Amino acid sequence: MSAEHSTFPNANNKYVESFGSKGSLPLPPARKLAVVTCMDARIDPAASLGIHEGDAHIIRNAGGIAKDALRSIIISQRLLGTREIALFHHTDCGMLTFTTPQLQDQLKEAHPEHSTEISGIEFHPFGDLEAAVKSDVEFLKNHPLVLKETVITGWIYEVETGKVRQVV
Amino acid sequence: MSAEHSTFPNANNKYVESFGSKGSLPLPPARKLAVVTCMDARIDPAASLGIHEGDAHIIRNAGGIAKDALRSIIISQRLLGTREIALFHHTDCGMLTFTTPQLQDQLKEAHPEHSTEISGIEFHPFGDLEAAVKSDVEFLKNHPLVLKETVITGWIYEVETGKVRQVV
Repeated sequence: MSAEHSTFPNANNKYVESFGSKGSLPLPPARKLAVVTCMDARIDPAASLGIHEGDAHIIRNAGGIAKDALRSIIISQRLLGTREIALFHHTDCGMLTFTTPQLQDQLKEAHPEHSTEISGIEFHPFGDLEAAVKSDVEFLKNHPLVLKETVITGWIYEVETGKVRQVV
Repeated sequence: MSAEHSTFPNANNKYVESFGSKGSLPLPPARKLAVVTCMDARIDPAASLGIHEGDAHIIRNAGGIAKDALRSIIISQRLLGTREIALFHHTDCGMLTFTTPQLQDQLKEAHPEHSTEISGIEFHPFGDLEAAVKSDVEFLKNHPLVLKETVITGWIYEVETGKVRQVV
């Protein structure tokens, strides 16, 4: 066990002590809400949005990319009853800093024997934050396997201030 | 704006008030750690693992599936310097309750015109929790595009108690 992981049990013990009645929370999210946001280390969706245990599915990937969240969204809606999606991208996102061919080239240089597999990976970077939020919301609104009655909104989280701002 | 979403600004105002110096946190995670866990509404990885803003990438999808997190892990390691992965599955997971053909059939019944696309979606459910953790850790350890020096551990989170337990 590394030094990093050995901190989990200590922190976890404190959490368990104050766990209260959370053990009886049901599986389906109480607010029928799924949040899609970036994996970025600076973002704490629970704290910054006031989401408590049991409230909402939280789907996180590099960028908060809707397409990458599709499998999870289908499961969230069809098996666990969510009917709202709030999609967040954020300022100073790593996805604004590279292109798919650049990252593919970097990987191919390190692993020339896996060039074919690498060429098949779309990394979904984006160049304009607000446009990327709108386009991801449109993707979800138009996707045939996302339920038509879903309320879908798009937001930007500012890592500099902690503020959220609705885009669509 | 729905009633649910209108709660974001209120909760967010409180967060912003106590934001402190977090606005100057750098983009790369301080603990060089990426956590992969489920989107489940009952899980708060920051609170239950003692992860603070700036510490670690948090990747979440239905089940905490390693394969589904691969794009994010590659970006996390190659562009943002993480060198550890802690993968969590959890008790009472929705992924233990169905099979891919069952969900595909449900979707095809609702959307017969999209049968071909639906047949192409692997939903990654699992039947045995501990075995699924081990198999996902093996997947990451053996994947050619996950850096060889990565420390990879596998854990179970108990939604009934809030406790975490290391499996591998």
